[in-house]
Amino acid sequence: MANSPSGDSIVGRITRLLETFDSTRVAQSPSAIARRAGLPISTTHRLVAQLVEEGMLERDGDGDVRIGIRLWELTTRGSHALRLRQIAMPFMEQVQQRVHEHTQLGVLEHDEVLFIERLSAPGSGANITRIAGRLPLHASSSGLVLLAFGDAALQQRMLTAPLAPVSAETITDPAALRRELAAIRTRGYAFAPGYVESVSTGIAVPVADRSGVVAALSVVVPRGAVNEAATVEVLKRAAAGIGESLSRSPFASRSME
Amino acid sequence: MANSPSGDSIVGRITRLLETFDSTRVAQSPSAIARRAGLPISTTHRLVAQLVEEGMLERDGDGDVRIGIRLWELTTRGSHALRLRQIAMPFMEQVQQRVHEHTQLGVLEHDEVLFIERLSAPGSGANITRIAGRLPLHASSSGLVLLAFGDAALQQRMLTAPLAPVSAETITDPAALRRELAAIRTRGYAFAPGYVESVSTGIAVPVADRSGVVAALSVVVPRGAVNEAATVEVLKRAAAGIGESLSRSPFASRSME
Repeated sequence: MANSPSGDSIVGRITRLLETFDSTRVAQSPSAIARRAGLPISTTHRLVAQLVEEGMLERDGDGDVRIGIRLWELTTRGSHALRLRQIAMPFMEQVQQRVHEHTQLGVLEHDEVLFIERLSAPGSGANITRIAGRLPLHASSSGLVLLAFGDAALQQRMLTAPLAPVSAETITDPAALRRELAAIRTRGYAFAPGYVESVSTGIAVPVADRSGVVAALSVVVPRGAVNEAATVEVLKRAAAGIGESLSRSPFASRSME
Repeated sequence: MANSPSGDSIVGRITRLLETFDSTRVAQSPSAIARRAGLPISTTHRLVAQLVEEGMLERDGDGDVRIGIRLWELTTRGSHALRLRQIAMPFMEQVQQRVHEHTQLGVLEHDEVLFIERLSAPGSGANITRIAGRLPLHASSSGLVLLAFGDAALQQRMLTAPLAPVSAETITDPAALRRELAAIRTRGYAFAPGYVESVSTGIAVPVADRSGVVAALSVVVPRGAVNEAATVEVLKRAAAGIGESLSRSPFASRSME
C-alpha cells in the first residue's frame, strides 16, 4: 500500500484527518485540516476530494468540509457500540425517568472511559461528558468502576502513571486510588463527588454479561442533591437488566480487554 | 494518490470495505470482506491490517474483524447527525412517554430516509427501521414527509422512477403518490397505514429550522390502535420544540439539499 515519504500509510493519513474533527469543530477548511493533522496541503486537498467523492466527507456551501452522514451511517450500523447502546437504551430511559438527571453508558477504550450514550432531561445540571467523548479512568465515576473491575495490568498501568487532576477533588494519590478501587469492588458502585466538576456527583455501577464487566452505567447529579442508596438501587436494577439482555442476545459482546 | 489497476482509489477501496459491515454482519473474516467488497484478497488483508493498526477496525479472538470503536468515536463526535439527534432527544423522549411506541428521527440522504435515532419502549410493536438504517421515501411516513416538503427536482426523480412496493399497501402509482404528497403538505403530516408492514402505521411530521425542513419525526404504532389527531398533536409540538432549539443553536444545521 502506498506510503508517504514519512512512512505514514494512507490509512494513517485518513485517520489523522478524521481526528481533527470533534464536537467543537464539525466543519473545517482543508487548509485547517492539513495544519491540525500535520499533513501536506496538497495531500490533504487530494484526500479530502476523494473522501467527498465517496460521501465520507461533505462540503459546506463555503468550502468547509464535515464528517459525511454516509460515513456516520457505515460506522454506526455495523458497530458493537450501537448494539450495546440499543440494548441498554430502554433501561437507561427507566433510570432517567426515576432520577431525572444525566444518565450515561461508558466503555473502556485505551485506558480511558468512552461514553457511547447519554440521556439528559431538559434542565438537568452540569455535565461535562458527551456522546463519543472521553474522561480519565481515575476521575469519573464510570472510569473508576471500569478500573476497579478491570484487569491487573490496566490497574498497574494507571497506578504507576501520573494521575492528572480534572478538578481540585480528583484523586491523584496512587495509594488513595488503590483504596478507592477496593471500596468500589466491595460495595459494587462508585460515588465520585466533585471529582470531575465541583458542582456534580457521579454515581456508577458495572454492567456485566457472561464474559465479565463490559460497561459502566452512571448518573451525574447536582452535588448534595442525591439520595445515594436509592440512586444506586435504581442503577443496579437497570445494570442487571442490561446484563441479562446482553447475555440473551445472539451476538457475543466485546468484553473489557 | 495511489490507485489500483482498476482505477479505484484507496479511499474508494476503504469505502467498499466499510460498506460490507451492517447490523447483521458486525464481524467478518478478511476473506469474506474481500468477496463482498469485490476487492483482491491480498489488498484486503493489507488494508485490514492497516485499519486494525489505526484502531479503525478491531480483531476478534477468532480473527474476524469489526468496526473499531475508535472509528465510531471519530465519526460520531464530529457529526452533524449527532448534533441534530442530541437536540431532538429530549423532545423524542417526551413523545415516547406520551405515545409509548417507537419514536424516530429521519433525514433525507441520497433519495432515501436515513434514521439517525429511534427510541423504543420494551414491548413496543413491530418496527422494521433501525438507527443508521434506511427506507424508501415513498413507503415510510418519514420518507413521505421528506418527499412532500422536498424540492421539485427530488419529487421529479421519485415520481418518474419505478416505485417499488415494500408491503402490499405501499403506494406505487405515481399519480396516487402525487396526490398523497399534496395531502401531506395540506394537513402537515403523513399517515401511512401498512405502507411498510401490514401490522403497523407510521405517522410523521416535518422538523424545520430557519433554513427549511431538515428532518422527519415519526412514530410507528400497531395498526388500528392509534388516536390519529392526538398523536399528530404530540408530534407537532415536539417538532416545533426541536425546530426552535435548532434555530437557537450556534451551529447552522444542514438543510435538505
